[in-house]
Amino acid sequence: MSLSMKRIAILGSTGSIGCSTLKVVESYSDRFSVISLAAGKNVDAALEQAIRWEPKMISVADEKDAEKLQRSLKDTGLSEIQVLHGPAGTVKVATHPEADFVVSAIVGVAGLEATYEAVKLGKPIGLANKECMVAAGEIITAEARKQKVPILPIDSEHNAVHQCLRGGRMEEVRKVWLTASGGPFRHTPKSQLSPITVEQALNHPTWRMGKRITIDSATLMNKGFEVIEACRLFNLPPSQVEVIVHPQSTIHSMVEFVDGSILAQFSVTDMRLPILYALTYPERIESDMRFPVMDLRHLDFQPPDMERFPCLRLAYEAVKAGGVQPVALNAADEIAVAAFLEGQIGFDDIPRVIEQVLSATKSRDLTSISQVLEVDSQARSLAQNKVRSMVHNTAPVRAV
Amino acid sequence: MSLSMKRIAILGSTGSIGCSTLKVVESYSDRFSVISLAAGKNVDAALEQAIRWEPKMISVADEKDAEKLQRSLKDTGLSEIQVLHGPAGTVKVATHPEADFVVSAIVGVAGLEATYEAVKLGKPIGLANKECMVAAGEIITAEARKQKVPILPIDSEHNAVHQCLRGGRMEEVRKVWLTASGGPFRHTPKSQLSPITVEQALNHPTWRMGKRITIDSATLMNKGFEVIEACRLFNLPPSQVEVIVHPQSTIHSMVEFVDGSILAQFSVTDMRLPILYALTYPERIESDMRFPVMDLRHLDFQPPDMERFPCLRLAYEAVKAGGVQPVALNAADEIAVAAFLEGQIGFDDIPRVIEQVLSATKSRDLTSISQVLEVDSQARSLAQNKVRSMVHNTAPVRAV
Repeated sequence: MSLSMKRIAILGSTGSIGCSTLKVVESYSDRFSVISLAAGKNVDAALEQAIRWEPKMISVADEKDAEKLQRSLKDTGLSEIQVLHGPAGTVKVATHPEADFVVSAIVGVAGLEATYEAVKLGKPIGLANKECMVAAGEIITAEARKQKVPILPIDSEHNAVHQCLRGGRMEEVRKVWLTASGGPFRHTPKSQLSPITVEQALNHPTWRMGKRITIDSATLMNKGFEVIEACRLFNLPPSQVEVIVHPQSTIHSMVEFVDGSILAQFSVTDMRLPILYALTYPERIESDMRFPVMDLRHLDFQPPDMERFPCLRLAYEAVKAGGVQPVALNAADEIAVAAFLEGQIGFDDIPRVIEQVLSATKSRDLTSISQVLEVDSQARSLAQNKVRSMVHNTAPVRAV
Repeated sequence: MSLSMKRIAILGSTGSIGCSTLKVVESYSDRFSVISLAAGKNVDAALEQAIRWEPKMISVADEKDAEKLQRSLKDTGLSEIQVLHGPAGTVKVATHPEADFVVSAIVGVAGLEATYEAVKLGKPIGLANKECMVAAGEIITAEARKQKVPILPIDSEHNAVHQCLRGGRMEEVRKVWLTASGGPFRHTPKSQLSPITVEQALNHPTWRMGKRITIDSATLMNKGFEVIEACRLFNLPPSQVEVIVHPQSTIHSMVEFVDGSILAQFSVTDMRLPILYALTYPERIESDMRFPVMDLRHLDFQPPDMERFPCLRLAYEAVKAGGVQPVALNAADEIAVAAFLEGQIGFDDIPRVIEQVLSATKSRDLTSISQVLEVDSQARSLAQNKVRSMVHNTAPVRAV
């Protein structure tokens, strides 16, 4: 093992970002190795990864699965791999003493504590977990500044911003411009948003993603979350973060500096690129990824419509309020999107549920990860109640 | 005067870049002052600038003009301003002991020696003189590396590249992409290039510039010169510098890194911006220049056509050959464009003259500025001869 070998802990190893991270590690096996893995409920994939990568530690969600995994590993002659489970197991994976870099890619609030503990130990983070910045951004970035650890965003927009920011100093930034595909309904009139079906909403023009993030892209809530993430990651007020719709999603994002210069980043839409960037920063290393610049033909842009897409407005309001409001925003959105996917509420009910939850959530400061989880839980209950009252109110009407 | 005040020498002060530089100095009079000015034949403008800026030294092209200027300054009570003339005067302006920064914006080979002498004294350069890089780039950049002085490009394309390069290290660059407006004839079929009139060729779609640079834009020779400049400024082989036609000229240029990321720069098309960037680098300071990102609508791109625009191909060939060839390219182009503007040769004769001069110029290394001037002079004579033979050959045919 070379001295410059970087040993990686991956939280969410069987998910999409986790698998892409392992592909990058595979392509650059002279530079990266896997030290520890945290998976969820897909224990077959976890076993396969453990056999392929022989990490020192692996964790899965449930105790039963952990026992099963342990037996399988013993049968394969890999009994020296430590098998853990649950939130405590994820924390152990993130804080493994030999981990030089932590890829935080567990979806949902499950990734919060482990990421925070890794930051506290001064481990650099490659961040793909949205909740870390949306819900707990104030807490995690404060700790990262204290520990002087870099948080390198692994998603195309913030990764692009991170790259463009190299063109100047933070105090020289006028604005960050996040590009948005605009989703499948960017041309849909407001009056036609109500009858949108789950099938229509799941048909995203550019990226193939999970169901929740696809709906969040259709409502522009995903872009709203990204606004909050940008505010937290780069320590900017919401007034310095703007959204522009760019249907081709070629330009991943832009930074405008105080002198009037704007830098934009683009590349192939392949998550291995921001992962590689995060893993090698401040270096860049050769990859086989090539955007065919010569084949560029047309790029289109338009301003976002916050009237038709109120989720984006709600996200700006939540980040302006700060504290617990973004936690409630995220939790309410998760419940509202699930209710939409189950056919309980309409597409345009999603922002209604969220707005009601935000109004019902008393503004206060955030002080700890446990408080984040508590507010998250309360906001979910509130959102569930709103959904139930909507189903109750509309059902008789639909029966007529 | 504050300690951080930067004292500027301007070569070519009455030209377009010189005047824009003075506008920037005026807007930021707390940061910049004028120490010395070199003008040309416009002695009225030089007098006005001397009165407004009270430099310690001013130089004009001709001795007679210098005497006139001296008398006028005496009448105005500004007899302490030292008045010089000719190439030696320009060198004195560039090498003024109190100059902290030299803006090199004299058009043509006249700026070469003065810029080179300033570099030798370790003075940072803001470079708007094309010939410094096209004709004498190998010599001047070698000296700049030796003296560790920055050469900051003051033209929208190379300034954009300089900004994008901040996103990585030089050894991490895969390609530099220079954007080109494509000129007024980017849709003109090859067969219709011959009868193009001077008037048509002077009608540039984006920038208002001098006559030669406007014709050079129409033939794409200007982009060819920029390819050579990029090779010299950033020490890159021609294979790493590409041109892409982008009629809106919104994106000023791009840099592709080895990992597959591409950074692009854009801004309002106002020369004050690259000047301000050069004067303040590595800082950026607030300006009133704002590109309306929200008004972005469409950007178009297409590959350049080197068959219809052979000047671009000739520039690539000249920089690949190196040494004296780019000197000959620049000199031959100046003569050919002048002949076209005077109605002596056709639009598509311009590359013919240049190609013949390049073939007739024996490849050899460049070792000194005086050698540059000698090769330049020889190439001009060669080009004049080619033009004469064309006029002679075609005249009887046209008379039929």
